[in-house]
Amino acid sequence: MYLGIDIGGTTTKLGLADSSGRFISENSFSTASYSSVSQFLSALDGEIIRMVSLVGDQLEGIGVGAPSANYRTGVIENAANLGWKGQLNIKGHLEEIMKCPVMVTNDANLPAIGEMTYGAAQVMENFVTISLGTGLGCGIVANGMLVGGHHGMAGELGHVNVKRDGRLCGCGRRGCLETYVSATGLKRTLFKLLADYNGGQSELEECTYESLSADQITEAALRGDQLAVETFKYTGKVLGRTLADLLLITDPEAIFLVGGMARAGDLLFGPTTAALNESKMTTYENKAEILPSSLPPEKVSILGACGLIQHLNQPKEKINRQLH
Amino acid sequence: MYLGIDIGGTTTKLGLADSSGRFISENSFSTASYSSVSQFLSALDGEIIRMVSLVGDQLEGIGVGAPSANYRTGVIENAANLGWKGQLNIKGHLEEIMKCPVMVTNDANLPAIGEMTYGAAQVMENFVTISLGTGLGCGIVANGMLVGGHHGMAGELGHVNVKRDGRLCGCGRRGCLETYVSATGLKRTLFKLLADYNGGQSELEECTYESLSADQITEAALRGDQLAVETFKYTGKVLGRTLADLLLITDPEAIFLVGGMARAGDLLFGPTTAALNESKMTTYENKAEILPSSLPPEKVSILGACGLIQHLNQPKEKINRQLH
Repeated sequence: MYLGIDIGGTTTKLGLADSSGRFISENSFSTASYSSVSQFLSALDGEIIRMVSLVGDQLEGIGVGAPSANYRTGVIENAANLGWKGQLNIKGHLEEIMKCPVMVTNDANLPAIGEMTYGAAQVMENFVTISLGTGLGCGIVANGMLVGGHHGMAGELGHVNVKRDGRLCGCGRRGCLETYVSATGLKRTLFKLLADYNGGQSELEECTYESLSADQITEAALRGDQLAVETFKYTGKVLGRTLADLLLITDPEAIFLVGGMARAGDLLFGPTTAALNESKMTTYENKAEILPSSLPPEKVSILGACGLIQHLNQPKEKINRQLH
Repeated sequence: MYLGIDIGGTTTKLGLADSSGRFISENSFSTASYSSVSQFLSALDGEIIRMVSLVGDQLEGIGVGAPSANYRTGVIENAANLGWKGQLNIKGHLEEIMKCPVMVTNDANLPAIGEMTYGAAQVMENFVTISLGTGLGCGIVANGMLVGGHHGMAGELGHVNVKRDGRLCGCGRRGCLETYVSATGLKRTLFKLLADYNGGQSELEECTYESLSADQITEAALRGDQLAVETFKYTGKVLGRTLADLLLITDPEAIFLVGGMARAGDLLFGPTTAALNESKMTTYENKAEILPSSLPPEKVSILGACGLIQHLNQPKEKINRQLH
């Protein structure tokens, strides 16, 4: 049995799963309602102890994903969207409390670990996941292993530059991919198009910037709202061009798109694939597929957290580990 | 003993080295003077047999690097700058002739393998090499292994887009990195600046486009020719911006610049580092060094070919191979 924990800015989710990724218990609680680390940890410890009591000594370990968490150190470092500041050594804390192996990683990596442990990527050695949420998260797997980088900071595709002097990003720079391709980017694009077309006869004209959500744009697009459809078209174009560059760098077998925006289906996948095909080198023709996540969207991250610790215990057999 | 072979468009180099990378025999012959595969192979076989006779059964294997060579298949596939067309199964051929293990890879990967086997990267698990020649080659090492990709086509950084509708590339697209950052890119930039400044009082005004070489620009820059210096400044700016994106994707410990252009020293490294620092996310501050290759420029590729086969026989011990 493996316990997965996904600490998000709003909600912390827990899931206890067997080695095939079947949950025997799931729960969640509000992260945002705790303003100090110690209060949050008390709540978390309580949840863990309650869940683990169901399986006793069958627990093999705990996997944790959190924003700004570093797998090399096991520390959550000044996460911008958690309600407390400073450093939290979550690995050290849980190992002491639970006396079992604990692995920690950046939450952007969870979908990739979920896909490689329980999903369509079980048979893949080289693939990428792109998570479209408030920002854009990315997990890169090469030679069957997650590319963590020297400081555990690899996979920050959301911050590659796609436009000089482009949109202002939360990181302080301009033109980062996630200012165009994410739930927030989708909203920014819609408002840009409203400005360009002086309205544009969209049902979304009535929404305030504050209140509009990516879900509303997705639903409007699925109902045929032309401005919402064009918003996805533009988003897909920017994403597809960036993926053409990513193909050159890591040559993945597949690119999985994860998150609520992927519900838009062909409205997102169509323009993304078209821009990718138009931009990519001809030698990469038909080399990588853009696919929806193979796992349920609400479970993919928590499965990733379970997979993180399951991998530690049962490493995948690798064929050619010498050099490539 | 390991035999390394670096098949280039102009010259094929061979080197027989011990496990510390010390050559006991080196040789080279003109690739360009053979217009058919069979003539080339006859010449190559002759050289190999002559060199191997020096060490007899101490030969552990042969490593080969060549343009458009695929390490998964061992085949050289329609290399644009070799004098013959079609497919050459160089791995199959040499295994049959020499009855020893043969490993083949794209020549762009050789410097990375050289650095990790015999150079400064022996202690690194995550690093990148950038080779500046006619084009721009790149080798990416993550988790101690070369990132080859699903089809053996990873590391083509030379073809990422740095400018929409930019310079025409040999690949048929526009704005590829190597049209700006390479020996050829250097010459293109110099001529662009000659046009911009209507001359510019450079000693290179006298050169024809056909005759001008990157070496001449490098030497002029080292003598203080202002237009040549500005050419390096522009080249470094484009490279530094691209490396800022590469840091985000693979988070390397170091980036090695390989090739004759690196002789320009601070004239290239200075603007590259400045552009990198200006473009990168603040969290990547001081995280990766841009370094000159630690191996002699004329030996780095052939050492890489030796390292390719040495790795197969003596895999580096890896500490954490489970997931990351």
